[in-house]
Amino acid sequence: MDGADYGVLAPAWAGTAAASLSSDTAFVQAMLDVEAAWVQVQADAGLCSSKDAQAVHAVASAQRYDLALLASKTPDGANALIPLLGMMRELLAHDGAPASASTALHRGATSQDIIDTALMLVLSKTLAQVQADLCSTADGLAALSQAHRQTVCIARSLTQHALPTTFGWKAASWLSAILDAEKQLETASLQLRLQWGGAVGTLASLEQFLAGNHTAATTSGQLSSQLAEHLGLQDTGAPWHTNRMPILQLGSALGAAIAALGTFGADVLTASRPEIGELSEPREAGKGGSSAMPQKQNPVRSVLLRNAAFSSPGLLSTLFTAAGTAVDERPDGGWHAEWSALRELARLAAGAAFHGSFLANGLSVNLPAMQRNLALGGDAVLSERLATVLAPLVAGGKPAIQALVRRSLNEELPLRELLRAQIPAQDLSDAELTELFDPEGYLGAADRFTATVLAEYSARKELWQSQN
Amino acid sequence: MDGADYGVLAPAWAGTAAASLSSDTAFVQAMLDVEAAWVQVQADAGLCSSKDAQAVHAVASAQRYDLALLASKTPDGANALIPLLGMMRELLAHDGAPASASTALHRGATSQDIIDTALMLVLSKTLAQVQADLCSTADGLAALSQAHRQTVCIARSLTQHALPTTFGWKAASWLSAILDAEKQLETASLQLRLQWGGAVGTLASLEQFLAGNHTAATTSGQLSSQLAEHLGLQDTGAPWHTNRMPILQLGSALGAAIAALGTFGADVLTASRPEIGELSEPREAGKGGSSAMPQKQNPVRSVLLRNAAFSSPGLLSTLFTAAGTAVDERPDGGWHAEWSALRELARLAAGAAFHGSFLANGLSVNLPAMQRNLALGGDAVLSERLATVLAPLVAGGKPAIQALVRRSLNEELPLRELLRAQIPAQDLSDAELTELFDPEGYLGAADRFTATVLAEYSARKELWQSQN
Amino acid sequence: MDGADYGVLAPAWAGTAAASLSSDTAFVQAMLDVEAAWVQVQADAGLCSSKDAQAVHAVASAQRYDLALLASKTPDGANALIPLLGMMRELLAHDGAPASASTALHRGATSQDIIDTALMLVLSKTLAQVQADLCSTADGLAALSQAHRQTVCIARSLTQHALPTTFGWKAASWLSAILDAEKQLETASLQLRLQWGGAVGTLASLEQFLAGNHTAATTSGQLSSQLAEHLGLQDTGAPWHTNRMPILQLGSALGAAIAALGTFGADVLTASRPEIGELSEPREAGKGGSSAMPQKQNPVRSVLLRNAAFSSPGLLSTLFTAAGTAVDERPDGGWHAEWSALRELARLAAGAAFHGSFLANGLSVNLPAMQRNLALGGDAVLSERLATVLAPLVAGGKPAIQALVRRSLNEELPLRELLRAQIPAQDLSDAELTELFDPEGYLGAADRFTATVLAEYSARKELWQSQN
Amino acid sequence: MDGADYGVLAPAWAGTAAASLSSDTAFVQAMLDVEAAWVQVQADAGLCSSKDAQAVHAVASAQRYDLALLASKTPDGANALIPLLGMMRELLAHDGAPASASTALHRGATSQDIIDTALMLVLSKTLAQVQADLCSTADGLAALSQAHRQTVCIARSLTQHALPTTFGWKAASWLSAILDAEKQLETASLQLRLQWGGAVGTLASLEQFLAGNHTAATTSGQLSSQLAEHLGLQDTGAPWHTNRMPILQLGSALGAAIAALGTFGADVLTASRPEIGELSEPREAGKGGSSAMPQKQNPVRSVLLRNAAFSSPGLLSTLFTAAGTAVDERPDGGWHAEWSALRELARLAAGAAFHGSFLANGLSVNLPAMQRNLALGGDAVLSERLATVLAPLVAGGKPAIQALVRRSLNEELPLRELLRAQIPAQDLSDAELTELFDPEGYLGAADRFTATVLAEYSARKELWQSQN
Repeated sequence: MDGADYGVLAPAWAGTAAASLSSDTAFVQAMLDVEAAWVQVQADAGLCSSKDAQAVHAVASAQRYDLALLASKTPDGANALIPLLGMMRELLAHDGAPASASTALHRGATSQDIIDTALMLVLSKTLAQVQADLCSTADGLAALSQAHRQTVCIARSLTQHALPTTFGWKAASWLSAILDAEKQLETASLQLRLQWGGAVGTLASLEQFLAGNHTAATTSGQLSSQLAEHLGLQDTGAPWHTNRMPILQLGSALGAAIAALGTFGADVLTASRPEIGELSEPREAGKGGSSAMPQKQNPVRSVLLRNAAFSSPGLLSTLFTAAGTAVDERPDGGWHAEWSALRELARLAAGAAFHGSFLANGLSVNLPAMQRNLALGGDAVLSERLATVLAPLVAGGKPAIQALVRRSLNEELPLRELLRAQIPAQDLSDAELTELFDPEGYLGAADRFTATVLAEYSARKELWQSQN
Repeated sequence: MDGADYGVLAPAWAGTAAASLSSDTAFVQAMLDVEAAWVQVQADAGLCSSKDAQAVHAVASAQRYDLALLASKTPDGANALIPLLGMMRELLAHDGAPASASTALHRGATSQDIIDTALMLVLSKTLAQVQADLCSTADGLAALSQAHRQTVCIARSLTQHALPTTFGWKAASWLSAILDAEKQLETASLQLRLQWGGAVGTLASLEQFLAGNHTAATTSGQLSSQLAEHLGLQDTGAPWHTNRMPILQLGSALGAAIAALGTFGADVLTASRPEIGELSEPREAGKGGSSAMPQKQNPVRSVLLRNAAFSSPGLLSTLFTAAGTAVDERPDGGWHAEWSALRELARLAAGAAFHGSFLANGLSVNLPAMQRNLALGGDAVLSERLATVLAPLVAGGKPAIQALVRRSLNEELPLRELLRAQIPAQDLSDAELTELFDPEGYLGAADRFTATVLAEYSARKELWQSQN
Repeated sequence: MDGADYGVLAPAWAGTAAASLSSDTAFVQAMLDVEAAWVQVQADAGLCSSKDAQAVHAVASAQRYDLALLASKTPDGANALIPLLGMMRELLAHDGAPASASTALHRGATSQDIIDTALMLVLSKTLAQVQADLCSTADGLAALSQAHRQTVCIARSLTQHALPTTFGWKAASWLSAILDAEKQLETASLQLRLQWGGAVGTLASLEQFLAGNHTAATTSGQLSSQLAEHLGLQDTGAPWHTNRMPILQLGSALGAAIAALGTFGADVLTASRPEIGELSEPREAGKGGSSAMPQKQNPVRSVLLRNAAFSSPGLLSTLFTAAGTAVDERPDGGWHAEWSALRELARLAAGAAFHGSFLANGLSVNLPAMQRNLALGGDAVLSERLATVLAPLVAGGKPAIQALVRRSLNEELPLRELLRAQIPAQDLSDAELTELFDPEGYLGAADRFTATVLAEYSARKELWQSQN
Repeated sequence: MDGADYGVLAPAWAGTAAASLSSDTAFVQAMLDVEAAWVQVQADAGLCSSKDAQAVHAVASAQRYDLALLASKTPDGANALIPLLGMMRELLAHDGAPASASTALHRGATSQDIIDTALMLVLSKTLAQVQADLCSTADGLAALSQAHRQTVCIARSLTQHALPTTFGWKAASWLSAILDAEKQLETASLQLRLQWGGAVGTLASLEQFLAGNHTAATTSGQLSSQLAEHLGLQDTGAPWHTNRMPILQLGSALGAAIAALGTFGADVLTASRPEIGELSEPREAGKGGSSAMPQKQNPVRSVLLRNAAFSSPGLLSTLFTAAGTAVDERPDGGWHAEWSALRELARLAAGAAFHGSFLANGLSVNLPAMQRNLALGGDAVLSERLATVLAPLVAGGKPAIQALVRRSLNEELPLRELLRAQIPAQDLSDAELTELFDPEGYLGAADRFTATVLAEYSARKELWQSQN
């Protein structure tokens, strides 16, 4: 039976751009891209011929390799680059490439240079996808928030009805998390660093080669710098082989993005329960159906967001364990444990951002349900307000009012009447009392907070647009 | 770019039996096996024709499906069974199967029945592989332990030399962990349960069908029981849809197996450091080499064990989070997060057991290095013994002796002379004093403990043999 | 500012028996108990005087130690036993104990012996508490399940209404998880092992002492065995210093218990949402109130169960990481990381079991809410049944019926009428059609499954009673 | 038995500043500080009297509360603020404070405001300690790196000897991780945000109060802003109740700091193994000793760093799980799970930074051991160099040279002679050949990389100094 995975057990990212951006094929292509770029940089510096570069470029296509075979050789040296290099050299020979191409290939480099850098390339593309979809999610949430600044609904804490709020502020709260996560991702993207250090992070072999090459008018530093530019990665002037902080910062930002999407999905899941019914996912052809129960429409995208939110924390913990136990100039197992954890985090983030974007831009808001739920608790939902406002007017103050609220609930008596009986009309007119029972009058600073988040969104949006 | 994974980033299990036992293909085959077995059970009970069963059997081959396409449809309903069922029905039609085959297919079942049961099938096979390789690991360690019951070496705590021990007891200690893990796996294998409950765990649809089928002389309970037997799984008499305890018990046992192998690998990694050199992995052609440094022989198998030991705890935490938050009759994301975590744990365990078995059966023991290291600390390594034995003979007792040890270390004076100067020969002869400095005389109960573990191994071994 | 913690940030176990059973005081007392028991065992074997044992017993009370001071000395040797031993010896001197008491104290032992064994003692007591409260939780759930075998309510999957079920079967499903977890805990309790191996797991010092003690008619094996019996722990005949499998098995079982309670709490949280309202926690004086909102009754106990379910997976992952990287004869940091993780897991399990027991035994079931929610989806909730039964009677079969269901939903037409129009009365009488719309007739094997779980509970209950 | 913890099971932070900065007492004090500051802000705005503020200030001392009692009441409302508020009001009454003080206390606030803000205060102080100790660690590592820029030693990968490097570059590599972590912490410290939103994040009660208070010339926004300033926290203009991104960013940065220290500790642990002996922890009185073995000096501080590195990843995963599942306006268990995980992470970071600083500033470097280990592999360690340089001079090129290296190793023949025999002197003089065997000539860019990191340190150092 063949050993390939296609995402059959990974609904959170299967079938999205994430799948192909982070597949083994994509990773192998990234390794090939690094090797090819390095020979190109050498050719540009006159350290090999452009024919060498062309020859390497010609073998730098993942389609030319049997990935199942490659994977099966991976345990031999505990990484895939070693067998890939062998296969590349075989292909060069097969193509009739000059021997100098094979010599220039991987010159002075080590497995870790290629693997770490290739992972950065894969991350870079996946991250760009995550950011684009987060921005689109933000667009959707901002529109929802703006549209519902006046939509009153119930706010809940510890699952129970608490006070009125607006749906605009709820959506703005999701938005604020997405914006925070997006900013963290942008900061983290500065950690997409070239790894270039040779066997032990000294570039000794490359330096030796340059020392012996009398035509070389370049330094190892310049070459690294050109390679980084070629690949679109950061060059910090030194390799970071056992300093795994870049991995942690990238992983944390991906995890944060997943969590920001997860909390949005969690709220949608609650709100789409039939009894609550305030929100529903867009009905899309072929989505969320049940083979047995035609009436059933599952909130599939939210389920996938929650799936991602549950799957990521453990992966992140693997990255931190590996980083905190890294030893020597290349760790003895921790490095190896990072690869699939980091790739999976990136995939989950990209898959979740994709589904989150759909959700944010297609969410149905059920206003009658919001009103119905708001009314469910009756007047008691404004008891905090009543206690605050009426305390000075009632003998016994706040506690007395809270007692009336409880009596109203227990004896099912209208709270308004109970209060009216206690407060003389000259202290509070009927109209004033009625007004106190209007949830719209007890929204506090919800709209100001919404505006604050929307302003932050607009500023951020402008920045994104200026960058693209 | 295509979206398949082959294990390129997973050296700990790539290229081993684990890869094919747990691939997406294997999982899809397991889903097909469950569906086919269910129609077979129906046919056996006269609920459909044997032609129906043959028709379903004919489409129950993973090779007949495009798994990449299947994966891409997975997010639509948040699981792969829904699209697979559609594809199966298309194939049935394509094969010209009778309509009754399509009707019998998946009768009364729900996605969760098929997915949970298929995961159990995948686990069942992978677990058998893990157990076989753990047993073989145990064989290797038992042989090592037996062979080295008299091999004296240094024992270390917190990285420092402590006292002498035997290498036999070291190996027996690894063995004891393997035996414990293997026992836990065997207990856990009783949790390989059929899941059969229909849409919400009531089998309502099946019962309705049986009620309306006047020829049916069978009950839903009997059918479930036959299905379980057919698939080689446990039948506990009720579905376990949101009771995820079986998953936790299986996952924990797999994690324990990985940890038992990990601690063995960790010790081999330490011992194969060139400065220590007590152990080395077998030199195998094509294994552990470095392309740049021909003198270098990496302890690759131990690195892979450590890789697995670092990768598993986070996956396990995902299973516990999902289980502890499962809601309703089918959870809204937690269930989905289990699949790949559980599969990956099983894979890592199988990969690690495979490499562990090789390691245990091919480990080189370097006796001179053990002797050299034992001698490294000089006489001080026996200071605990000296303090115990000589305390009554020296004024000042134990503290006085410990002070002599420190003086010996600081002033580089022979401890033996310092002690001789303090203890009259009539209290302790020269020969007696010399004997006290022999590490072989200070091994305590190391051999008894070794024997205890080896006896446990033998008993266990007998059990395994009786079962196979 | 003082450095003590009291559980202020740990509502899941603060204020329960777990708090005192697992406090630092309890752990220090356990270390003292181990040391005292060891001297007692020596005295019983004639290896020291009973006066020595009495003297050590007199200092073996945690109340006599300044725990803040002890804690502050903990980092010096990376464990608390080293400074505790010093303090014990000071107290012995202060009490005027014979020097022989100090000599007998800790004879042949090492820090790890005392700390591991003391943790086992703490676990042993906490585990007993967990088991007692799990049994009481099981009692409550069994009673609920039995009482509601005929209570029809809606079953949900992926948050949406699916089919009818009974509340009895829901409760039985929670019960089945509790029973599984309890069984796992019982199996794990066999791992409450004495750790007794001396500095490196050879008992060399003790053996040396016994060899030099001509009156000693005992072996180190007998002494260990007596110590285990004295402390109520298992003796497996060998120390398990770097075999951390017992820790993993205990931790996994504790984590499973927390998860079983967590899934129960998760369902109660959902069901106590005001819009759903099927379940509510018992109103207890002073519990769950809100200072600002008197109408609000928070499902506090369920929140605490969920808190525990979220807190435990990470702790468990720490145990697996530590176990899988244990090196040498005593690990260099992993061992130290186990302590607080294991203690916290035990605490969370005990706290959760306490709250779970209250919840299970006081849960209010709101029958009208269950009926209201069941009716919410109208006839569509039985669409699976209708499709199964009526398919043969309608042209177009199952798909045609599913189309009718969708039409009924979209056009808000009564499904019953739509079907009536399609099916001639001779094929299905009005009465038969009406019966098909009765949820009580579509409960499948719910009651059989409930009975299966209740029978398992009864058998288990008998076992518990026979053991106590 | 009392229920307090003192750090007896937490050697990584017990006895350091972290212990008191993050104790329950410190947290309770922080809650009191928030409540007192809020009344003060009200008094400053004329919303209550300065007498009220004084009265609240007088009860805002943790010493006045029975924390064990407080903890025991914590589960009642699932948080400690509710009972604390009751106790504060009792104390106000006991002190004879005006009723208006009690009214002003907690006005418009909710538990979450106080608890989240208090956690930010605790984090703020602990983080400052972490940063100070990271800076001091950086100082130590920079000095080590500078001092050893010319110290040649062996570099290792996958535990095996690879090539020469300098100890200066090793130390610079640790330093680079510390600098990265410190920068991430500084960025994260901008997330130390005030939480101020009232019951559901709308500040409705406060706004209502201000609306009814005709003398109030202030807005809720201004008051929040003043409160943030008072407490030294960020004010982002809106509450962040279910947006837990700030928690994730802070937690990730703390985890990264621990990992950066952990990898340093891991290398020290390896290097202080007696057989390697390149580094040792400073011998400090009372530190690292063994009661039984006076010769033994445990690398205790490194063990504690590793302990922290193992303990933190699981805690971090808890934060991400809680954040990604947060629902409603206040989550039903996830919020509660954050508290102790976040506090513990902060503690571990502070403890680890403390020990890391000691270690970095007191590490002993054993130059002879470095030389001895460098020589251990003989000439083979330069085989990469020889292959690079001599390939053009030998028939068969690189593979031929690698074969010679292997022959030299297998047959124990001097590599130099083997090469000499193959290469005519006119191509390579004896002197040139000898030079090729000098490790000092094969350090590549190690010094340039060291300089890059040291320059970054200097720039950072200047920044720190300008800030303090």
